[in-house]
Amino acid sequence: MSLVAIPFKSEVPDTVLNLVEIAASHPRVKGVLAIGAEEDDTFRALRGRQEGLQRENGTFLEVILQERIGTKRPGKGDAMNTALKWFLEETDLSRIHFYDADITSFTADWITQAEEGADLGFDVVRHYFPRTSTDGMITFLITRTGFALRWPTSELPWIQQPLGGELLFTRQVVEDLVANPIVQAQSDWGIDTVYTFFNVRDGHSMYESYRPEGKVHTLYGKLAELRTMLVECFSVVQELSRAPENHGWRGTDHTPTGGIVHRVEPQFQVPLPIIENVGFDIQGTMALLLEGWTNRQEELLNYFDRPIRDGLLGNRETPNFEFMGEDAWAQAYCTLLEKYEQGDADWEDLIFKLWTARVLNYSVNVALRGYGFARRYRHTTIVRYLKRAYFGECSGR
Amino acid sequence: MSLVAIPFKSEVPDTVLNLVEIAASHPRVKGVLAIGAEEDDTFRALRGRQEGLQRENGTFLEVILQERIGTKRPGKGDAMNTALKWFLEETDLSRIHFYDADITSFTADWITQAEEGADLGFDVVRHYFPRTSTDGMITFLITRTGFALRWPTSELPWIQQPLGGELLFTRQVVEDLVANPIVQAQSDWGIDTVYTFFNVRDGHSMYESYRPEGKVHTLYGKLAELRTMLVECFSVVQELSRAPENHGWRGTDHTPTGGIVHRVEPQFQVPLPIIENVGFDIQGTMALLLEGWTNRQEELLNYFDRPIRDGLLGNRETPNFEFMGEDAWAQAYCTLLEKYEQGDADWEDLIFKLWTARVLNYSVNVALRGYGFARRYRHTTIVRYLKRAYFGECSGR
Amino acid sequence: MSLVAIPFKSEVPDTVLNLVEIAASHPRVKGVLAIGAEEDDTFRALRGRQEGLQRENGTFLEVILQERIGTKRPGKGDAMNTALKWFLEETDLSRIHFYDADITSFTADWITQAEEGADLGFDVVRHYFPRTSTDGMITFLITRTGFALRWPTSELPWIQQPLGGELLFTRQVVEDLVANPIVQAQSDWGIDTVYTFFNVRDGHSMYESYRPEGKVHTLYGKLAELRTMLVECFSVVQELSRAPENHGWRGTDHTPTGGIVHRVEPQFQVPLPIIENVGFDIQGTMALLLEGWTNRQEELLNYFDRPIRDGLLGNRETPNFEFMGEDAWAQAYCTLLEKYEQGDADWEDLIFKLWTARVLNYSVNVALRGYGFARRYRHTTIVRYLKRAYFGECSGR
Amino acid sequence: MSLVAIPFKSEVPDTVLNLVEIAASHPRVKGVLAIGAEEDDTFRALRGRQEGLQRENGTFLEVILQERIGTKRPGKGDAMNTALKWFLEETDLSRIHFYDADITSFTADWITQAEEGADLGFDVVRHYFPRTSTDGMITFLITRTGFALRWPTSELPWIQQPLGGELLFTRQVVEDLVANPIVQAQSDWGIDTVYTFFNVRDGHSMYESYRPEGKVHTLYGKLAELRTMLVECFSVVQELSRAPENHGWRGTDHTPTGGIVHRVEPQFQVPLPIIENVGFDIQGTMALLLEGWTNRQEELLNYFDRPIRDGLLGNRETPNFEFMGEDAWAQAYCTLLEKYEQGDADWEDLIFKLWTARVLNYSVNVALRGYGFARRYRHTTIVRYLKRAYFGECSGR
Repeated sequence: MSLVAIPFKSEVPDTVLNLVEIAASHPRVKGVLAIGAEEDDTFRALRGRQEGLQRENGTFLEVILQERIGTKRPGKGDAMNTALKWFLEETDLSRIHFYDADITSFTADWITQAEEGADLGFDVVRHYFPRTSTDGMITFLITRTGFALRWPTSELPWIQQPLGGELLFTRQVVEDLVANPIVQAQSDWGIDTVYTFFNVRDGHSMYESYRPEGKVHTLYGKLAELRTMLVECFSVVQELSRAPENHGWRGTDHTPTGGIVHRVEPQFQVPLPIIENVGFDIQGTMALLLEGWTNRQEELLNYFDRPIRDGLLGNRETPNFEFMGEDAWAQAYCTLLEKYEQGDADWEDLIFKLWTARVLNYSVNVALRGYGFARRYRHTTIVRYLKRAYFGECSGR
Repeated sequence: MSLVAIPFKSEVPDTVLNLVEIAASHPRVKGVLAIGAEEDDTFRALRGRQEGLQRENGTFLEVILQERIGTKRPGKGDAMNTALKWFLEETDLSRIHFYDADITSFTADWITQAEEGADLGFDVVRHYFPRTSTDGMITFLITRTGFALRWPTSELPWIQQPLGGELLFTRQVVEDLVANPIVQAQSDWGIDTVYTFFNVRDGHSMYESYRPEGKVHTLYGKLAELRTMLVECFSVVQELSRAPENHGWRGTDHTPTGGIVHRVEPQFQVPLPIIENVGFDIQGTMALLLEGWTNRQEELLNYFDRPIRDGLLGNRETPNFEFMGEDAWAQAYCTLLEKYEQGDADWEDLIFKLWTARVLNYSVNVALRGYGFARRYRHTTIVRYLKRAYFGECSGR
Repeated sequence: MSLVAIPFKSEVPDTVLNLVEIAASHPRVKGVLAIGAEEDDTFRALRGRQEGLQRENGTFLEVILQERIGTKRPGKGDAMNTALKWFLEETDLSRIHFYDADITSFTADWITQAEEGADLGFDVVRHYFPRTSTDGMITFLITRTGFALRWPTSELPWIQQPLGGELLFTRQVVEDLVANPIVQAQSDWGIDTVYTFFNVRDGHSMYESYRPEGKVHTLYGKLAELRTMLVECFSVVQELSRAPENHGWRGTDHTPTGGIVHRVEPQFQVPLPIIENVGFDIQGTMALLLEGWTNRQEELLNYFDRPIRDGLLGNRETPNFEFMGEDAWAQAYCTLLEKYEQGDADWEDLIFKLWTARVLNYSVNVALRGYGFARRYRHTTIVRYLKRAYFGECSGR
Repeated sequence: MSLVAIPFKSEVPDTVLNLVEIAASHPRVKGVLAIGAEEDDTFRALRGRQEGLQRENGTFLEVILQERIGTKRPGKGDAMNTALKWFLEETDLSRIHFYDADITSFTADWITQAEEGADLGFDVVRHYFPRTSTDGMITFLITRTGFALRWPTSELPWIQQPLGGELLFTRQVVEDLVANPIVQAQSDWGIDTVYTFFNVRDGHSMYESYRPEGKVHTLYGKLAELRTMLVECFSVVQELSRAPENHGWRGTDHTPTGGIVHRVEPQFQVPLPIIENVGFDIQGTMALLLEGWTNRQEELLNYFDRPIRDGLLGNRETPNFEFMGEDAWAQAYCTLLEKYEQGDADWEDLIFKLWTARVLNYSVNVALRGYGFARRYRHTTIVRYLKRAYFGECSGR
């Protein structure tokens, strides 16, 4: 039997309640754990539903606040790690599921599909989803790019959505994560990356299950939040890459031998509304390139190759992003891995501008060619990146 | 039997020769007429091939210079009108074909398909082609939009590619065009528009034949040329719309009765390379919005609705095009129809900037959603335009 | 204002009631007329709703029985003609809509879209729909094929779904139909064909409006009903084709001049469930070819070309349909036009077997190649048929 | 550096020569080995080209006859095993490629792509291809089905095209295969299956490289050949499944732990001609179900579940295949694994009839729904099969 864990923070109460109801009535689920960031309306609404759920489904609902476990900004990492700890300490269940609290397309099938993956013997099951071609730009440009450039022969760059939050862990996996101090320290948006990274390092088998209807959820409207995610997701890649041997990577990352068993359901269908969606406001995003320039940012750009430096500096006057193609991004990324200083506001602004230039370049040169082209492009770019890294570029050694 | 006419101007000789060879060996073709803008290499190469063609295929090849017939800028209009006149005066053939001299995807099937349309009794056969979703922006935004706004119930807005230069006319159609002083005067890029316009006004039946392989040809690389096309294509719409009764429009344009027989082959397949192509350089095009501002342009903008005026003025600083949606464009177009002064450099610059803003807006908000979405959008926009015009907006009456 | 007419016969009462509610609350609708085949449950349910509708929407609902107007089998033709007569005699409304009573995908948009077509000045608006590639085999093989072979240059073969029952007529069109004795006599499934035929003959302009969601409705499960439809739909083509001059065809059908204004919305999207549906049971249908053979059927086959005769005779032993390609069907159709005797059971069986062989051949050789291929094929076949007919084959003259 | 091996038997000499030329001029290729079934025209043509190739490219071309190594019917297995042996004994090269001699869509990119996979550290690189939805019926129904039913948790059922003949082995893989007596004995069409099977058993990492242009080659026109392939491909699965412990399967097949590293390039694009092709003649294939019945075949059917027995027996009269759905095929397959006797003509006929019924059922119920549906269906069927096997059905234990 399984536990379903739902971290939440200022969500629409009805959306979370709906998720809880679906989970609580699933035959494989023994109980639901909701982990709140604070005692808000959703927290209270869930508490009010505890007795009813127990009576109607015989399923427990536990509603708790997230503990302060990590050392980074307190965020989703603390919530998820709180859930893992609670799972080990308070239950003897064999599997835990995580689902984001804001999903409106959730159905009981998601739980069934994850359970079936585990039934087949997989340690980790990850749901993955079709995405609009201008969406998922942190996944593509930060996480998968970083995985390709620094662990080119590992399974890491082949994981479809390494930042996805809909997943199942078996008890052994949870024990490994709870015992891992790096994982426990990661209290912020970097949590998904460390889970994925150490799942692979620890040799856990992984099944990626495709949900064609997509993950319909609240979009990250506020740009501030996206900037925080970007910075935290890059920072964790930088830290992990700095001394892989310290992370107990088994063998060398220069051979796939010792890799994990990893099966990916093909991405057959993509719904038309996802294909035809546009992820963001291009003109508004261009304007961001022109804002907030400081003298120090201009100096820091000297670390970069000249075309990148000059290209980004062009944005002090007018939007300029044509320079930031696939190769320029790989070069910029390698420089960032080496030079970026966490917690430095100018570096944060710079990485945000570099990434924004890349997103715009990709949007008007790749995504504009259509969904199919963009999907092929994203895959083949990751493969090109891992090949260049394999032959020594940006390998950090 | 038919004549094939090929207007040419600074083309690659081999491309034109290839076209001529294909045409000359087609069983329905009695002869080929090449009309040059000047005595250039292509002209001489064609002359050198005359005897050989006659001997090998029994087909004549006539190579002539275009006459000065019209009153506008001497251009493609003079070349095509020269061909029509020559066809009437020098032959008694029943049909004339036109093909642009720079097409590299041309095959004998194009001629066959046009002939079969005429065999079925159609007076005019027009080839039409799949196009990249960011291509054809003069056709969509100038010609079809103008047809929808000013002749909403006529057949005009329902013609797929009213600027297409690959077409067949039967002899009666040619006689009507040669006898029409407005047509004869149109020596510039406006020629395609007046041909289409008067074909419909004169009640000639029309068949639009779909060539799925597309029209592969030299692209209009130079922006100057595109600006000239834009200005001339808009000017002819403005002139035609000013006093439709003077053009002998039969009945009223407020009822389709009296319309023409017009059949369009469905657009079944679109080749992947056309779907995945990108028509132009977005960043480079944005830069054009910032250039060449004059005080008078700013004054002329007072004729326009305030959001359009303010929106375009924003480009004196940084690229601004989000304001130029579908409705703003219709409003701007109506203002242009009323106020635009031909031959005025500031007006020319202004219409180019307005159009560029619309092209960018469409690219990042529509084309970015994929080929299928953009194709549907273009069609439904024209239908929305003709409906709004039908109920009185911008009708000029 | 408009009348919405809904013919019904043994339908699910709730489906019809739902249609009536949607229609009654549309701002363009003054009243709804339901025409029943008999006083069944649906009839009574509708009667029970009259007062409520009048009170809530201010819209009248009239529920009547269909009159015996025609001379063929009493059926849908009587119901529709009853509605036309009632519309002229009891109202002074300007437009009438028809919708089949069993549609479950109906929305108010259908009415709006039809009204907008009429607002643009069209006399007739016909809705058309995406269809599964093995569906619509009477439309394709009987009606459109017959139109192409006998009226090749008319607008008839270019009408997408000439048997469609979702349409709008303006008052003048209704007057023409009510005054036409051939139309009034057509009380059976032939009604759709004669409406379409005389709409075109009378020069009424036509707009085909595409509804991408499709027409979801009760399928013609019973084969007996399909056989009746087939026989009646062919019979009416045969009758109309026998002496076109008697039907007042204007001018000759050998020139599109004199044709009608006919605009077709492009068929942009097709929903995946329609693409991936399968219309019928192939093995079960093959079995029908083996049944019910009589000596007279074998004799009648002597009228046909030898490969067709021998091919169909093969089915006395084992399923045989490879012989019934596109050309064989055109030949068989021409023979049927000449020899088929209405009301003769052996001829009815024979036409059903010939058609079934063609349906199977098309299914395994065309539809099996996918939706896109099949859609292109159906269109190009009709064009090939009308070209061959234009040059004299099967023209009956 | 690598060796390219090309087994051939009665091929068009020019096709093989073209392959050899492309291979010989590839910078990664040291030499080409052509292995003929006999000294035919192709053999002599290749011999005649040896010196030229050596001179022009500095690449050796060796042309040899296949040895009699195995114990099954002498066929492709002997040819490939001859090549492996020659590679070990006569060269010290690190990699060997195999390409079928009849491919006409071959390019140098195939070699490059395979080499790049090996550069990344993979032991085995397999090319895979888009296929028409009615093609590949032995792969789907025999090999992948057998792998799913008997090794459900292994990597075997997740290999896209386990019978593909375009692959690369590193030297260690070749040593394992040459040392394996079961592999060496497999001289017939079973060779591809044993290569794939023991590659996985031996824990070799595998990369499946997608070639979107497809493998264009001579089709297996003759049915006799297809029947032989079917029988030999099933026989090898039966043998391998009988005592997996004898084959040194590491650990248990009930857990993916111990599986191999296996990466599959996504199948992005499929060319339209492949989507729209039809693999075979449905009516002709149905006729085969009626032929060659014997009393003993009817008796052998008693081993099967009643609906299967009765369903197949129906074909003594008229084509019957609706009974052979997905579940029936799994049941029939399990019975065949247990009861089928190799070398018995009645069993061979029976397995061919059962398979034919399944192919027809799949064609009219699945492939008829379109390419996308059929592709999804094939994948999900294999997953359903491996799940049912995992829970004990047909596991043979």
